[in-house]
Amino acid sequence: MQVMVDFCVVPLGVGVSVSKYVAECQRVLAASGLSYQMHPYGTVVEGDWDAVFAVLRQCHERVHAQGVARISTSLRLGTRTDRVQTMADKMESVREELARDESKPEPR
Amino acid sequence: MQVMVDFCVVPLGVGVSVSKYVAECQRVLAASGLSYQMHPYGTVVEGDWDAVFAVLRQCHERVHAQGVARISTSLRLGTRTDRVQTMADKMESVREELARDESKPEPR
Amino acid sequence: MQVMVDFCVVPLGVGVSVSKYVAECQRVLAASGLSYQMHPYGTVVEGDWDAVFAVLRQCHERVHAQGVARISTSLRLGTRTDRVQTMADKMESVREELARDESKPEPR
Amino acid sequence: MQVMVDFCVVPLGVGVSVSKYVAECQRVLAASGLSYQMHPYGTVVEGDWDAVFAVLRQCHERVHAQGVARISTSLRLGTRTDRVQTMADKMESVREELARDESKPEPR
Repeated sequence: MQVMVDFCVVPLGVGVSVSKYVAECQRVLAASGLSYQMHPYGTVVEGDWDAVFAVLRQCHERVHAQGVARISTSLRLGTRTDRVQTMADKMESVREELARDESKPEPR
Repeated sequence: MQVMVDFCVVPLGVGVSVSKYVAECQRVLAASGLSYQMHPYGTVVEGDWDAVFAVLRQCHERVHAQGVARISTSLRLGTRTDRVQTMADKMESVREELARDESKPEPR
Repeated sequence: MQVMVDFCVVPLGVGVSVSKYVAECQRVLAASGLSYQMHPYGTVVEGDWDAVFAVLRQCHERVHAQGVARISTSLRLGTRTDRVQTMADKMESVREELARDESKPEPR
Repeated sequence: MQVMVDFCVVPLGVGVSVSKYVAECQRVLAASGLSYQMHPYGTVVEGDWDAVFAVLRQCHERVHAQGVARISTSLRLGTRTDRVQTMADKMESVREELARDESKPEPR
């Protein structure tokens, strides 16, 4: 089963700067071979369910290994059985909707 | 690695009543043997990382099997290496904090 | 517009014990007069949109006032125009679904 | 109070294609004058607390006005009192961490 996951790892008790830990997750993602994309409040990754959740687990393990005793992660995950939809497909669908606005004779 | 997960499964395209699908996830949880607790906007489950995520995967599979083509789930997940903390422990910690208010001579 | 919100406030940089800050939010909720319910990984609150988000803002302000420089909160929020559905209604709908299992002659 | 919010609006009961509704929220954001950035599983927006939550409310109102009876939105929100940090700042902090990897004599 394919899954798309958007997650944000929040380390507790290690100060207010968290980029060091976010970077560690980016290294895990880069090494995984999965398709992913960082944004200002998380990272979206897509792939086989087990592969994606193995990566998420590894993120937690590696951040704990950096000396973080507690982590609270929030995530969204989507699955669909009707068709495969990639991250690029999702962005494109919205952009197509918005492009129609510009071709209308009257502004909204 | 122990994990606590709070999740809410949202089925798309099957009307506005979702209790049928939430109930199916409760059956998966009941059969899993894991400790869990439903609340008005999700369910909290705790246990071994792999067991918990296997249950979450099974929830998605079973809801898709009910004829739902698309599911969007939101979740929070917490891990900690300093100590084991159950769902009951978390509730108790907050209640202890609040109980101190009542024993104070001056109201807050 | 009525809204149901499930939120979890995560304070950064103040150690791994967060019950003190969660308790502060419970005090804000208690003073608000809104209907709410704490669970092991958050709190569900329902009411008028503006009243609920004013309470959420006050939670952030009060936790910052306790010396927390950074907060990351995750939340789910639901609105519906077809009917009013309370926290108790949502729980009841799922329980009714599950109750039907017991009245069936054959186990699932 | 400045806030950064990452949100994903999920309309229920209107089929599995949701781009029409996501596009409507993008129009609300564009008209708001706030800084925002769409990604494959949501949109990040930053600005004054009240302005950001007014936009979120308007998104719900406009999607309901498109004939959606029920909406479930997930979001993350961050506030900090130590300094102002924009979406671009957050991305840059992580990239700086990762850039250090390349300048190291030994691979990780």
